[in-house]
Amino acid sequence: MIFLTRRATFSASHYYWNDAWPAEKNEEVFGRCANRNGHGHNYTLEVTVAGEPDPVTGFVVDLKWLKDVIEREVLAAYDHRHLNLEVPEFAASKLIPTTENIAIAAWRRLEPVVTAAAEADSSRARLSRVRVYETPEIFAEYRGGL
Amino acid sequence: MIFLTRRATFSASHYYWNDAWPAEKNEEVFGRCANRNGHGHNYTLEVTVAGEPDPVTGFVVDLKWLKDVIEREVLAAYDHRHLNLEVPEFAASKLIPTTENIAIAAWRRLEPVVTAAAEADSSRARLSRVRVYETPEIFAEYRGGL
Amino acid sequence: MIFLTRRATFSASHYYWNDAWPAEKNEEVFGRCANRNGHGHNYTLEVTVAGEPDPVTGFVVDLKWLKDVIEREVLAAYDHRHLNLEVPEFAASKLIPTTENIAIAAWRRLEPVVTAAAEADSSRARLSRVRVYETPEIFAEYRGGL
Amino acid sequence: MIFLTRRATFSASHYYWNDAWPAEKNEEVFGRCANRNGHGHNYTLEVTVAGEPDPVTGFVVDLKWLKDVIEREVLAAYDHRHLNLEVPEFAASKLIPTTENIAIAAWRRLEPVVTAAAEADSSRARLSRVRVYETPEIFAEYRGGL
Amino acid sequence: MIFLTRRATFSASHYYWNDAWPAEKNEEVFGRCANRNGHGHNYTLEVTVAGEPDPVTGFVVDLKWLKDVIEREVLAAYDHRHLNLEVPEFAASKLIPTTENIAIAAWRRLEPVVTAAAEADSSRARLSRVRVYETPEIFAEYRGGL
Amino acid sequence: MIFLTRRATFSASHYYWNDAWPAEKNEEVFGRCANRNGHGHNYTLEVTVAGEPDPVTGFVVDLKWLKDVIEREVLAAYDHRHLNLEVPEFAASKLIPTTENIAIAAWRRLEPVVTAAAEADSSRARLSRVRVYETPEIFAEYRGGL
Repeated sequence: MIFLTRRATFSASHYYWNDAWPAEKNEEVFGRCANRNGHGHNYTLEVTVAGEPDPVTGFVVDLKWLKDVIEREVLAAYDHRHLNLEVPEFAASKLIPTTENIAIAAWRRLEPVVTAAAEADSSRARLSRVRVYETPEIFAEYRGGL
Repeated sequence: MIFLTRRATFSASHYYWNDAWPAEKNEEVFGRCANRNGHGHNYTLEVTVAGEPDPVTGFVVDLKWLKDVIEREVLAAYDHRHLNLEVPEFAASKLIPTTENIAIAAWRRLEPVVTAAAEADSSRARLSRVRVYETPEIFAEYRGGL
Repeated sequence: MIFLTRRATFSASHYYWNDAWPAEKNEEVFGRCANRNGHGHNYTLEVTVAGEPDPVTGFVVDLKWLKDVIEREVLAAYDHRHLNLEVPEFAASKLIPTTENIAIAAWRRLEPVVTAAAEADSSRARLSRVRVYETPEIFAEYRGGL
Repeated sequence: MIFLTRRATFSASHYYWNDAWPAEKNEEVFGRCANRNGHGHNYTLEVTVAGEPDPVTGFVVDLKWLKDVIEREVLAAYDHRHLNLEVPEFAASKLIPTTENIAIAAWRRLEPVVTAAAEADSSRARLSRVRVYETPEIFAEYRGGL
Repeated sequence: MIFLTRRATFSASHYYWNDAWPAEKNEEVFGRCANRNGHGHNYTLEVTVAGEPDPVTGFVVDLKWLKDVIEREVLAAYDHRHLNLEVPEFAASKLIPTTENIAIAAWRRLEPVVTAAAEADSSRARLSRVRVYETPEIFAEYRGGL
Repeated sequence: MIFLTRRATFSASHYYWNDAWPAEKNEEVFGRCANRNGHGHNYTLEVTVAGEPDPVTGFVVDLKWLKDVIEREVLAAYDHRHLNLEVPEFAASKLIPTTENIAIAAWRRLEPVVTAAAEADSSRARLSRVRVYETPEIFAEYRGGL
């Protein structure tokens, strides 16, 4: 099995805040991240699919297709956005957009599309891993069963 | 002459908006950066001083001192902040926090402190250059006379 | 178990082309990569071996030996070469040198040598993973059973 | 004055060969680069313009415009191409596409467009520097008068 | 399960030497690393914990806590030190501080603290992986059962 | 004029210490760098020459020659060495091997060789700049008249 990865970047704002807590507790737990004006990052997203290379094309997946999927499913919603205010999975549910939760959310956006393509074409790959770097020093990875 | 550089990073939000223009013109000129919810970046700041190494210490400046100056004069004001809303040189004057303007603003914060230290100690270096990376692909540099 | 990795780089040309297809289909599927004049990349190869550190030397493998194996088995054949025209596993079989196929081909070149060394010296490590970066944004990884 | 830089990348093939020399001399002078099948690189291009930020927009130049200029004037001709065979300034004149010559050639492609824009709009910046990385270890820089 | 990683750096000296061998054999096996004056590296340490994000905070672990643990348990002992002479696990046992052994040693320093925190708070994560880069070209990884 | 740069790396130990001062003052001024056991870094050296490309070869200098000069004049003396104890310009004169002083010392090692080659061959380039990175966050640059 081959694991094929495509990297993409997006710039977004966020803050960490729990409405059920008083301001003091938010500041104690979340420190400078509790600033409600928001701050931001250049996020790097690494999307890994796993499968066998097609014997004719040598592709596990067509990387142009994968790039388009990442842009349509994730970057169109996250890039140049305020994650807490504009991205539904965080805004609607008050889910805090930590690096961990962004990795899970990106997986949930990508997995049905990659799986549907694989079911339509048995040679296609499955989503294997989503890694999100908040900075070069901090990253979170969510893995499926592969 | 030796040019000595210390790099630091900060994470901040910003947007591009001119109050004198209608929303349509802001969107036309600034594109996705005109989103008033803000978006953000991991900025990298490179501060360069120029001078002769001290013959006893081998230092152009003490890098611990330079690191403290950068943290106190720039990072304390910019890191984990919304540049348009919380940083005086942008908020008060409605100056747009482009990479170019951030480089000039950081120079203006650092130059008096570095110059005052040089005047108090003739062997100290002068501020030579401030470079700001908004992303690894975009950076602006402001240079003094050295 | 420890996983020890050595990185190396090589510069090579390639193109994507299937002789069984008309030019139009090659251009449709492979886009700009179908240019028969070729284009090229600075590839990065990461070779990972897995094993226990030798209690005397602290080595899973001698990294000088591993560097020599990578240079002799892979770089001597790939570096400053046109993969489609000069590298046997691609040229002879018309196998398209995608990042995925390069990772598999490098594994096949390295694995017998690493395994033979391990069989001659029971403390030596087995090949665990080969990762190939075509650009910093695209990489493929092939893993053995470890 | 502010120096504003935009980075871009392209992947291309090249070789080093002087038709006036016998093969032996080409191999002696150019080593592995004399392989006529070509080899390739992921080139990084850094384009720097210099000027004063516009007081209204905060822009030295509009970076979307600069990105478009780089793509239209340089990347459209160089990316996924064989520099010796397909790029006119190298192919027609048998000029060897060394890193040095690529930096000069990119300057010549970009300078008239940047200068014409500056003449049409006195606040615009002039081209200041073009840097080309052949690998992370080798780069050439061509500077104008700024 | 989410894998969350924090990167840190330290600068240290080391050499490779086995007291049970004559100098000639040390030089033959360890090459330039056998220089008893020592040489040094900027090491990068990546510490990965694995767990479920806390539904309230979105944290697998508090990254400020993890940073403090890394600094207290590893960097305080290794940074700006001579590993062979000053770090007990290498100095006392004459264990050679290869990249492999540093990865294992860092794991042993970190694992009890991370595990104790997890036992005190059932939502906390377990230590999953420690990776040490000696240079950008050489790294070793030690993994627990996750 | 073209500025052509070749990057190289070396790993070395050093400490900061002034024999004329008591231990307390060394520790106060130099902090953790005053540890006499030494600590180390992966240094990156960037050597820039300036000149006109040769019209036949397209070379400002032959990069293989420049690489050999760097290895013979600098790396052979500095790599895998203790700068304070084994490198004459620091050991003999008790000059402290700060990043600033290493940049000057590398210039003095390289400049006569590059200048002599230029005088023997009028098309050759002159040494323009030496930059030394102690870490990715700290670097010093020494420039000649070009």
